[in-house]
Amino acid sequence: MERLPGFRDFYPEPLPHTDVWSADARQYIFEKWRSVARRFHFREYDGPPLEPLELFTTKSGDEIVGQLYNFTDKGNRSVALRPEMTPTLARMAAAHERNYKKPVKWFAIPQLFRYERQQKGRLREHFQFNADILGETDPAADAELIALLIDTLRAFGLTERDFVIRLSSRNAWQDFYTKGRRGQSPAAPNGGKEEYEFFQVIDKLDRAPESETARKLSALGFSLPDVRRFIASGAPTPELDAILRNLAARGMKDFARVDYRVIRGLAYYTGVVFEAFDATGEFRAIAGGGRYDNLIKLISGGRVDLPALGFGMGDVVLLELLKARKLLPSFDARVDVFVVIQDEELRLQSLKLAEDLRCAGFVVDYPLTPSKPDKQYKRARELKASFTARLESDEYVRITNPESRKEIVVGVGDAANHLN
Amino acid sequence: MERLPGFRDFYPEPLPHTDVWSADARQYIFEKWRSVARRFHFREYDGPPLEPLELFTTKSGDEIVGQLYNFTDKGNRSVALRPEMTPTLARMAAAHERNYKKPVKWFAIPQLFRYERQQKGRLREHFQFNADILGETDPAADAELIALLIDTLRAFGLTERDFVIRLSSRNAWQDFYTKGRRGQSPAAPNGGKEEYEFFQVIDKLDRAPESETARKLSALGFSLPDVRRFIASGAPTPELDAILRNLAARGMKDFARVDYRVIRGLAYYTGVVFEAFDATGEFRAIAGGGRYDNLIKLISGGRVDLPALGFGMGDVVLLELLKARKLLPSFDARVDVFVVIQDEELRLQSLKLAEDLRCAGFVVDYPLTPSKPDKQYKRARELKASFTARLESDEYVRITNPESRKEIVVGVGDAANHLN
Repeated sequence: MERLPGFRDFYPEPLPHTDVWSADARQYIFEKWRSVARRFHFREYDGPPLEPLELFTTKSGDEIVGQLYNFTDKGNRSVALRPEMTPTLARMAAAHERNYKKPVKWFAIPQLFRYERQQKGRLREHFQFNADILGETDPAADAELIALLIDTLRAFGLTERDFVIRLSSRNAWQDFYTKGRRGQSPAAPNGGKEEYEFFQVIDKLDRAPESETARKLSALGFSLPDVRRFIASGAPTPELDAILRNLAARGMKDFARVDYRVIRGLAYYTGVVFEAFDATGEFRAIAGGGRYDNLIKLISGGRVDLPALGFGMGDVVLLELLKARKLLPSFDARVDVFVVIQDEELRLQSLKLAEDLRCAGFVVDYPLTPSKPDKQYKRARELKASFTARLESDEYVRITNPESRKEIVVGVGDAANHLN
Repeated sequence: MERLPGFRDFYPEPLPHTDVWSADARQYIFEKWRSVARRFHFREYDGPPLEPLELFTTKSGDEIVGQLYNFTDKGNRSVALRPEMTPTLARMAAAHERNYKKPVKWFAIPQLFRYERQQKGRLREHFQFNADILGETDPAADAELIALLIDTLRAFGLTERDFVIRLSSRNAWQDFYTKGRRGQSPAAPNGGKEEYEFFQVIDKLDRAPESETARKLSALGFSLPDVRRFIASGAPTPELDAILRNLAARGMKDFARVDYRVIRGLAYYTGVVFEAFDATGEFRAIAGGGRYDNLIKLISGGRVDLPALGFGMGDVVLLELLKARKLLPSFDARVDVFVVIQDEELRLQSLKLAEDLRCAGFVVDYPLTPSKPDKQYKRARELKASFTARLESDEYVRITNPESRKEIVVGVGDAANHLN
């Protein structure tokens, strides 16, 4: 029996096959995400992996609707496995925002799902680090969020030579759009369908054929050279300028720069948007995010109006990048202490020793059934045991450091104190 | 917009409403589970939350089939959100067992799903700590697994006065069944449909009406008094005896006892089975497990034959029990350092200070926008800041312990060394 296409099995290392993923590397990534978020005083939340379909279809734009992993449940509800976390966060925040002092700084590590027509090797799920700030319009919040993104990537050993944050602004593009439409056919209302189409064309600028882009822009009343000139100018808006100065004060000047090619696909973004890319351009975006000041109002039916911004960082591109830069530690099996049972008469006492050492916080293993001491010491080496501990009698234990070959015999109750 | 019935939202504490769950308590429980499993040298794995329906329907018995959260996906596959982890583990182990030395000791913390007719307040998902040992038939493996279960519950502060492991054996019940059928109508083959029906009656002994139980037993050729006598005898089988002696050697004598009322509902169990209950009997089972020596063979179509055993411990009953015993710590927001910005001229330098302290490992917060120092100190107290740090100039920072009111002024670069 096989797992479903596009889903992953996570095994302990060393990995048995190239087709499966490392549970240890996944946990390593999760722990870094969590610890950096906590240092920035972001607090953890989570929602259901399954949500009403409507939560995603009405708010996120066409980009996401075609990729939803949706179905009808036994209760005849239209539901979807979450494709992104932001609508859930908006729903949760709208329900209980009064309980929390603003600005709210929250993070989550959800598993996200999508269902596209099958492409070989294309995943249908991934994990994503989500961090959001709610209740603050000042660019200081954008800078705090981007600083978290930068420090998260630095926590893995990545440096300013490895990645860059490309900063952009929907506001800047909105100005460009509004000015471009002026004096033409009746201007589309702000945030209208044509403006969204324009943003979609910009979002695909580097990926779509040039002739197609030019044709689409022209139909919307714009020229490709004008667009390229605007991107090349790269003049920061006042808010982008404030963010850059804020980041520079933190010593993060070299990690971010204005790049108007970034605009983000999702419909709900409103202000600053950004993406993290590896410096060589080999990989897809490492992370992306921005402001969505209207989403909570939309999702709460106008009941709650909170400015908000956030980013998401997936586990798949990050893992590829860390592997390519040789920044992933080795996760082979290892123990602190391997309890050797040479004399089976001492098995029960050896179990007690193992239990005591575990209670003292050590990672301990031992042979479940009788085996030759040679085999046991071999196993201890395989497990890279920092120490072996072998009872000599009811009362004494021989502790050996297999590396240095240093040995010591101590009272059983004293063993834990000699394991360092 | 509301979340789906039976699903949970997890919020940071203090909780905004009784209808939602604590993300902090969840993480506290996950971290305990993970750290104790690691001390026992169990290694983490995970599989997809969505699996082919067939993985669950053919192996787990009728108990689980009626409760599956299953549907047809866009690719016309019959799929189910996993209701339990063991079939996934069996699938994964069967695929790559050759890569791992036996015995294999693995754990996982999956979210599991079920879909029953709606009962008010009944959850459709929970998280479960799963630990399994593969490749060892000796009761020493059962004892190791049960010791992990006991130490996991002890790690939360629960003692032998709070919970007990009820040990039982499908083998003992099989003997009872086989002896009882002897000389009657042609005996059902071992593991046959009638034997499974008999196990189901035993499993529901405490919950079903006595008259119904007596009638069903009689139809299978058994009498309720005989069954009750067998349970009351409680004579341990040799394997249960070995487990009890093994646990006693570890100082865990008072945590386990033989109780033949336990038999476990799932069809795939073969030998020792057990459940953890709170001592007062207020709650449903805290955990349950046992041997399933034939499951991997079944799932791999006979290709791989590995004895196996495991347990699952859900987050919901455990949380109820910890709350009732007042063993849950408080998880209110708190920071190590709150950086006070009194002079806005020093904002950029204060950001640098916050960043440096975060890089040094401290949980740091600060006001994103200008606010009165009084309000900032109030916020620091709300966040139970261990220290406040306020720049006096470009060069000097005043560090205050709000508890002791002790203050010190030090060079900016030296601040991290004075935070303890």
